[in-house]
Amino acid sequence: MWQRWLSWLVTAFSENIHPGFCYNQTIMAFEFFKKKNEDNLPGKLSAGKEELFCYGFDASSSEGKPSAVVRPLNTQEVSDVAAYAFKNNVPIVPRGAGTGMTGGAVPLKDAVVLSLEGMNRIIDIDEKNMVAVVEPGVINFHLQERLEDVGLFYPPDPASMKFCTLGGNVAENAGGPRAVKYGVTKDYVLGLETVLPDGRVLMTGGRTYKGVVGYDLTRLLVGSEGTLGIITKIFLKVLPLPEETVTMLCTYDSLDAAAQSVSRITSSSVIPRALEFMDNESIRAVENYGSFGLPVDAEALLLIEVDGPRASVMEEAEKIASVCTASGGEVSIAEDMFSKQRIWDARRAISPALYRIRPTKINEDIVVPRGRIPEMLKELREIAEKNNLIIANFGHAGDGNIHVNIMTDKNNEEEYRSATKSVRDIFEATLKLGGTISGEHGIGLTKKQYVGMELSDVSIEIMKKIKNVFDPKGILNPGKMFPPDKY
Amino acid sequence: MWQRWLSWLVTAFSENIHPGFCYNQTIMAFEFFKKKNEDNLPGKLSAGKEELFCYGFDASSSEGKPSAVVRPLNTQEVSDVAAYAFKNNVPIVPRGAGTGMTGGAVPLKDAVVLSLEGMNRIIDIDEKNMVAVVEPGVINFHLQERLEDVGLFYPPDPASMKFCTLGGNVAENAGGPRAVKYGVTKDYVLGLETVLPDGRVLMTGGRTYKGVVGYDLTRLLVGSEGTLGIITKIFLKVLPLPEETVTMLCTYDSLDAAAQSVSRITSSSVIPRALEFMDNESIRAVENYGSFGLPVDAEALLLIEVDGPRASVMEEAEKIASVCTASGGEVSIAEDMFSKQRIWDARRAISPALYRIRPTKINEDIVVPRGRIPEMLKELREIAEKNNLIIANFGHAGDGNIHVNIMTDKNNEEEYRSATKSVRDIFEATLKLGGTISGEHGIGLTKKQYVGMELSDVSIEIMKKIKNVFDPKGILNPGKMFPPDKY
Repeated sequence: MWQRWLSWLVTAFSENIHPGFCYNQTIMAFEFFKKKNEDNLPGKLSAGKEELFCYGFDASSSEGKPSAVVRPLNTQEVSDVAAYAFKNNVPIVPRGAGTGMTGGAVPLKDAVVLSLEGMNRIIDIDEKNMVAVVEPGVINFHLQERLEDVGLFYPPDPASMKFCTLGGNVAENAGGPRAVKYGVTKDYVLGLETVLPDGRVLMTGGRTYKGVVGYDLTRLLVGSEGTLGIITKIFLKVLPLPEETVTMLCTYDSLDAAAQSVSRITSSSVIPRALEFMDNESIRAVENYGSFGLPVDAEALLLIEVDGPRASVMEEAEKIASVCTASGGEVSIAEDMFSKQRIWDARRAISPALYRIRPTKINEDIVVPRGRIPEMLKELREIAEKNNLIIANFGHAGDGNIHVNIMTDKNNEEEYRSATKSVRDIFEATLKLGGTISGEHGIGLTKKQYVGMELSDVSIEIMKKIKNVFDPKGILNPGKMFPPDKY
Repeated sequence: MWQRWLSWLVTAFSENIHPGFCYNQTIMAFEFFKKKNEDNLPGKLSAGKEELFCYGFDASSSEGKPSAVVRPLNTQEVSDVAAYAFKNNVPIVPRGAGTGMTGGAVPLKDAVVLSLEGMNRIIDIDEKNMVAVVEPGVINFHLQERLEDVGLFYPPDPASMKFCTLGGNVAENAGGPRAVKYGVTKDYVLGLETVLPDGRVLMTGGRTYKGVVGYDLTRLLVGSEGTLGIITKIFLKVLPLPEETVTMLCTYDSLDAAAQSVSRITSSSVIPRALEFMDNESIRAVENYGSFGLPVDAEALLLIEVDGPRASVMEEAEKIASVCTASGGEVSIAEDMFSKQRIWDARRAISPALYRIRPTKINEDIVVPRGRIPEMLKELREIAEKNNLIIANFGHAGDGNIHVNIMTDKNNEEEYRSATKSVRDIFEATLKLGGTISGEHGIGLTKKQYVGMELSDVSIEIMKKIKNVFDPKGILNPGKMFPPDKY
């Protein structure tokens, strides 16, 4: 044990640790852990070259390098690390699986990454109270599977659901295709156990479905991107598993027709469980990537899913199908589990598939009011044409949430400059239509320079003061969420 | 015009205004309004005896007396009043219809009541985006009616829905019977325009269904009981009106059987739209009050409503009916609109009807995890027996939210002391079962002494600091929500 610990320390000393501050902090952190929990030490703190490299990324293009990686296994250990960090002014970045799209878990300012992947127990599936209690490191899909076994259902399903953690989902207020009917993560978080930056433990909410005692701190923590506290336990509302789902594809030979369908479906009497959109760029990229059998000539397609009681679900699907047909779409219903799965695999493959078009992806997730999808898609097409850029659009059209992907090449300086410039145009168009610059990915690092386009000075001032209430030393996930000059 | 204004001022001077501070403040307020908006003055500020009396109450037993009542008609006027109050350290209490159960709108410390009843426009029913935009003074039921006309649906339905305002609903995070399926007010608020205590206007959210830019200030403001800001515009999510509803009554000859039914229904695959409970005391009180045809011999009764597509709703109702029957209940389905209405009229009459039992009602609205209703009802029965008190229980059993009414007489000193003492016993039992002391009524004045039983010191400390971020002078609805010694 000691040998391993020493060898790590030597590695840390010799090449991996940022000079100055970090080295000393890391030594101190090692000492701290050594005292706290000598036997388990090596699993809990590391500064190996590979690890510092790996924990410097997430799914955005941002990059950092932590001074060390700490892996606590329970709330007490998180609290110990936080209290230590607070006392010694060590910046901490909480991290789940690192699947975030905006750099929220990327360490800046020589921060220590506090990885919650080891806290991955499903503590309780409480069928009687329709509540699941989990640790933050539980993979979203693992909970889904466990729940389905007993006829229960946790709706939020981000595209990364097979890898991402529920703690990360809570920190980012993750959405997913089912949000159009079932809402996003915040709609399921009944309570949280959170370690504050000074190590104190804050409990909010619990196993009840209602509660109005004091301010809603639970909801304030959801979506706070790890800047207010470190989430160590999550109480989630769960639902009965819907009896039946019907999955269908609808193809269009015009983008406008697809957009009009979306608008008509969202204002119809049926709420689909998913209403996903793909434009021709996305369809072709996916087919090029995996041959899923999508119609590459279609200008757009909608992936629509309806769920509910067996007695009514087919009728509802038919209602939606007739709306689609009336807008000029061609509908096909997935006949079996295999076809359903293939459609969803295609949908989930879009993000990686797009890299076949160009090596660099600038990925935004704007939202407009649901009826304004047609206008927004028109704006996006104009921005692409004006700047001679490839922009592939797909996403959760049912909530007005479009994933806008500018496909470019970082090494092509002129094109890249034009691409980054057009981000501002896209956001301007979004805000002009009454939208928001992020529906589910958050701000993190990649969007913080644009926050002032959407939020007023008053709003940013209040948020900064709230940050200060929770984190007076500014050591929890510093440098995120707020515009650079305002932080 | 001038004469009216002068006569009011004279009235204010001669008898109605609290001496000292208030008199001067009121004079200053008059002067301020005179300058701002001379023509509209008399409708906007008053200090008449009757008004000061009326605006000193809500639906709780709390009582206060404002120094004046201000009735702004738009955001600018609210902002002007707030800026004036901020500069002059005048406490302000925002108020909707005054139907609150915990004294949230009762003025303390010679506050000026800022009544939003004049801001009662439905600004927009935006069918395309499934959003309604309203001013805070709109009556809940008026919005419901307007929406139903166009096939839309706003679920939150507090018992006072025919009188209460949406601004008040937002401030209290109001619930209602439909919450068991559709959630509470916070689940429908997409955005808010809020005037801060210093007069600045804060805009949060808007017409989009998703949004993760910055901290969720919208949700922080919902349920903040008028202590953080004055809500001047509300963006609400609306749904398609369900095709069909089925309403049924289920009677039981034992309380336990009814409680077991609730527990089995909530963990079944059907989510009813309402799952209301009444005990024998409540049934008898209602029948004594209005002869609605409820079975007075029943030990308990469930009012259950199911909604959804025509094709499946009867099947779902039958599933629930069979769960009820299996627990020993006797089910009857309302055959027509008239019968449905009569059942709901009976349900909504409980609160006033209870006064027939005893003249004083101590009214709590505890919540326990949904499966623990049987245990909680047992605890309540024991507390009633031990203290020789009449406790009538009814409420939203489907969310575990029970309205506990200790019926007593304020003039019977000994009994009243025992009644108030038992409140603490009830809360202790609730918290022991993992519950919360308020599901939808809020804290206001009547519960603030008990807040420390539920919230930790850390939690209260953070909430107080957040209050201070929004209201550094502590002039917005002072003296509410926090335990007396901690405020």
